[in-house]
Amino acid sequence: MHWNIYLSGEIHSDWREQIKQGVEEAELPVSLYAPVTDHAASDDCGDTILGKEASPFWKDHKASKINAIRTRTLIEQADIVIVRFGDKYKQWNAAFDAGYAAALGKSVIVLHDPDLTHPLKEVDAAALAVAQTPAQVVEILNYVIEPVD
Amino acid sequence: MHWNIYLSGEIHSDWREQIKQGVEEAELPVSLYAPVTDHAASDDCGDTILGKEASPFWKDHKASKINAIRTRTLIEQADIVIVRFGDKYKQWNAAFDAGYAAALGKSVIVLHDPDLTHPLKEVDAAALAVAQTPAQVVEILNYVIEPVD
Amino acid sequence: MHWNIYLSGEIHSDWREQIKQGVEEAELPVSLYAPVTDHAASDDCGDTILGKEASPFWKDHKASKINAIRTRTLIEQADIVIVRFGDKYKQWNAAFDAGYAAALGKSVIVLHDPDLTHPLKEVDAAALAVAQTPAQVVEILNYVIEPVD
Amino acid sequence: MHWNIYLSGEIHSDWREQIKQGVEEAELPVSLYAPVTDHAASDDCGDTILGKEASPFWKDHKASKINAIRTRTLIEQADIVIVRFGDKYKQWNAAFDAGYAAALGKSVIVLHDPDLTHPLKEVDAAALAVAQTPAQVVEILNYVIEPVD
Amino acid sequence: MHWNIYLSGEIHSDWREQIKQGVEEAELPVSLYAPVTDHAASDDCGDTILGKEASPFWKDHKASKINAIRTRTLIEQADIVIVRFGDKYKQWNAAFDAGYAAALGKSVIVLHDPDLTHPLKEVDAAALAVAQTPAQVVEILNYVIEPVD
Amino acid sequence: MHWNIYLSGEIHSDWREQIKQGVEEAELPVSLYAPVTDHAASDDCGDTILGKEASPFWKDHKASKINAIRTRTLIEQADIVIVRFGDKYKQWNAAFDAGYAAALGKSVIVLHDPDLTHPLKEVDAAALAVAQTPAQVVEILNYVIEPVD
Amino acid sequence: MHWNIYLSGEIHSDWREQIKQGVEEAELPVSLYAPVTDHAASDDCGDTILGKEASPFWKDHKASKINAIRTRTLIEQADIVIVRFGDKYKQWNAAFDAGYAAALGKSVIVLHDPDLTHPLKEVDAAALAVAQTPAQVVEILNYVIEPVD
Amino acid sequence: MHWNIYLSGEIHSDWREQIKQGVEEAELPVSLYAPVTDHAASDDCGDTILGKEASPFWKDHKASKINAIRTRTLIEQADIVIVRFGDKYKQWNAAFDAGYAAALGKSVIVLHDPDLTHPLKEVDAAALAVAQTPAQVVEILNYVIEPVD
Repeated sequence: MHWNIYLSGEIHSDWREQIKQGVEEAELPVSLYAPVTDHAASDDCGDTILGKEASPFWKDHKASKINAIRTRTLIEQADIVIVRFGDKYKQWNAAFDAGYAAALGKSVIVLHDPDLTHPLKEVDAAALAVAQTPAQVVEILNYVIEPVD
Repeated sequence: MHWNIYLSGEIHSDWREQIKQGVEEAELPVSLYAPVTDHAASDDCGDTILGKEASPFWKDHKASKINAIRTRTLIEQADIVIVRFGDKYKQWNAAFDAGYAAALGKSVIVLHDPDLTHPLKEVDAAALAVAQTPAQVVEILNYVIEPVD
Repeated sequence: MHWNIYLSGEIHSDWREQIKQGVEEAELPVSLYAPVTDHAASDDCGDTILGKEASPFWKDHKASKINAIRTRTLIEQADIVIVRFGDKYKQWNAAFDAGYAAALGKSVIVLHDPDLTHPLKEVDAAALAVAQTPAQVVEILNYVIEPVD
Repeated sequence: MHWNIYLSGEIHSDWREQIKQGVEEAELPVSLYAPVTDHAASDDCGDTILGKEASPFWKDHKASKINAIRTRTLIEQADIVIVRFGDKYKQWNAAFDAGYAAALGKSVIVLHDPDLTHPLKEVDAAALAVAQTPAQVVEILNYVIEPVD
Repeated sequence: MHWNIYLSGEIHSDWREQIKQGVEEAELPVSLYAPVTDHAASDDCGDTILGKEASPFWKDHKASKINAIRTRTLIEQADIVIVRFGDKYKQWNAAFDAGYAAALGKSVIVLHDPDLTHPLKEVDAAALAVAQTPAQVVEILNYVIEPVD
Repeated sequence: MHWNIYLSGEIHSDWREQIKQGVEEAELPVSLYAPVTDHAASDDCGDTILGKEASPFWKDHKASKINAIRTRTLIEQADIVIVRFGDKYKQWNAAFDAGYAAALGKSVIVLHDPDLTHPLKEVDAAALAVAQTPAQVVEILNYVIEPVD
Repeated sequence: MHWNIYLSGEIHSDWREQIKQGVEEAELPVSLYAPVTDHAASDDCGDTILGKEASPFWKDHKASKINAIRTRTLIEQADIVIVRFGDKYKQWNAAFDAGYAAALGKSVIVLHDPDLTHPLKEVDAAALAVAQTPAQVVEILNYVIEPVD
Repeated sequence: MHWNIYLSGEIHSDWREQIKQGVEEAELPVSLYAPVTDHAASDDCGDTILGKEASPFWKDHKASKINAIRTRTLIEQADIVIVRFGDKYKQWNAAFDAGYAAALGKSVIVLHDPDLTHPLKEVDAAALAVAQTPAQVVEILNYVIEPVD
């Protein structure tokens, strides 16, 4: 089986790249997907493509909905959804994605430092694994995806 | 029709009470539900009921899962899910609930101050209304629930 | 069994009232639901409740989403969805409701004059009955809802 | 990921061709699907294949159901449903498709001129993007489908 | 719990009446539902309510769809679907109902004489019980519905 | 798109072969599936594989369930389910398959002679097309599956 | 909200009675459901109601399916499924019920002694709480079901 | 069609290998999947990958959830789930998988010796076939998967 894996959350560190290298080295049969990780492009896509909004609310609204075409489709197609929380920003979109994935019955893996355990407890409670490093995530994938031979 | 409404999110202000008064004054045919809003009880319910955990992670985990029996059932039974974001704490559980409700196709109303618009843009994009005050939420309920006569 | 019936579409004639009288005379165990049929209130609800929009697009958008809280919930709760097309306006919302109801597997009854048969053929094709008068709709309800005794 | 995109609505302009050229130039991994766009063939398919009907209602009914084999299957298989409204005809089938797609949780993009904003407000409210030109639709696809690299 | 039970199939013997008496004597918390069992009314309802058809095919079609408003709704609301096959007629509608109920995950009980075992084997294979008499069906209901005390 | 088509029903005429030839000549992108059409093998598979049963009921039961592994999986994977009724036997399995497919929202095409119209009216009412010859079925497939070019 | 709770598993101790007393004392708005707990009646219901089987396999099969009418319906109607494992018998039906409930997204609470932790680890992993005593289960219910006031 | 088959249950005999050889000899278009069958690796994966737990309960819990990423995904992707019960251990995970697969509507085949018939009766009742040897399972697969030619 080929597995689809969606990498949600933090866009300001190289955790996706680490996971990508790990699964490539392990030659796992996976495709990795992600949101648009160019912060400015993601914020501005509504205005850029469909025309400038006067109100910040509608600028954000239009952009977020265009991004949702990508993110919701990819979450729905995923077998595993990995959600990374970093130490900056509100990251409510990451928690939203985790709730969305959980309600669809996806296998959720959460990736965060131990000092975020208490505020993330409800998110962690919906996950099948809580990792602290990208290397652990790769090990989990390597373990669960190892094919019958 | 009787409507079930779940009030998710912030537990440190009286917004639920304001909505409750509003719908009672309007005599709307609704039942309002909420998570356990006693912060300490909610944090400690796992240890209190099932026994003390040595590790903070598992203490939180056990408590969050017990709380999930309540919150997921009530979200699944709800016709409308109202999610309130305040100015304190990470509130990832509120964003998780919004994602969970959205994936189930529930009508979501988000309630927050305008200065949270940018970080909440993905949550707002999944909502059918974004309000700034409990009074506005009551007006929306009063408008959409008004029966045929 | 008590049946929930949603009456979608035209708001400028008294067809809902005729059906209401008919089912009351027949003493059918039904509840009738409808969208907000006050045209101005429906168009303006977003601005009225949540604040005035500068752009007509967002004014309409905000209002339509608030109305969707009501219409989608009531369609999802309905056993039968009756959709009326009149001779005025575009009425794309009525056709949208018919498609929404059909995809959810609801029993759809369409009500329109014979001269609309050709443009409504795709909508009619998804219906379990196509009636020309409210009286016929009442007869259908009277026939299908008659209880075992 | 390969994306399936269904192009619903207007059959009397070259908007599908423009989108096709755009996605081919961008080398996007997409398949584009459409209803039968030969107006006469679509209207007559019931009589042509299964035999002539005396009544216009049943001629239309038979044809619309055969067309529904195609359209409903393709909408159900689609990741994105794009619905185009032009300036002619009732186009209730386009609004029906939008409602059908929305109820299935598909990402809907609506394409129409600004003067149709008010009558299409309920359809637009269910969409993740509202575009005015095929070029904008191509830009959205180009943005959301750009793969992780 | 109150149980909804749908009694599908044969309309020319008193098996529904026997089950009704049995569950009333046992004071079971059940509601029994059935299709319209007046053969002529059922065959003619399309023409009677919506106008006479020239073609027998469309007369039957129109009637069957009106009947489907009742039968499909009641099957979807049922906890248990009981399907009776007698010794007369094709009874394809009964087998259709059994397939429809099975696909929805309903508990199906089939009721027929032993000499129909071979032709009904696929229907029986989808059932949780195969009874030969209405009295056995009542005993099953009495056994499975007996409440905790 | 590649279409999966399941051919249910009569096993004593060459209608499947005719459809197969037709779709091959038209070079349609379809896969055709069917139940085991060897009557004796189908009746005896339970006893042959799992051991002889003393009772005819359980012999049939065991065989029908093994056949159901094939038939239910193939119906669930199908885009279109074609159900053929001939002039012999009870054919309740064909009507069961039609009901099963209809409840899953599959596009159903029924194929039968006009003299079966009245007893098949409920099955026909759930279909998107009712054909009288395999050639008509091929024409329908040829029409609905014609790709965008 | 009124909660439906299904009590699956061990039938040879008084754990159901203890939970019943607990929720009655706490005046919780719950209904408790259970399988038929009369061991002999449960084993023999097929033979008793539908006639004696020669083969032990089919005797068990017929009985288990009749019991499934009750157990599957009650699990599907339940908000919470509590599964008790004791120290006797194989209890594969209890583990089957836990898997069935988990796949339906029900909140599962498992109740067992600590010495069963290792063999029950996969069942526990699907639960929202693992209790050791009926009193703990009552406390959980009392905590999660406490209404908003 | 290519079939996905999940082989759940006993990990201490060579039944999976026998089925693998059988389907390879028969050249069936199937992929076989299984849980991690290295007992120690499966028990320890949580501690090994994510860090050592002090409590046996949480060690098991963490491991079981990681294993669930694999097992639930593979069951959800399967067309047929084969569950083997041997003569050792509690094997509650096998019964859990059977219940999980049954609730998802998968075709379940159970494989066990006749002396386990009585304790497995509820599991067998949810299966479409109950086999005693891997060779019988291969014969069933060979029979149901034989393609149309």
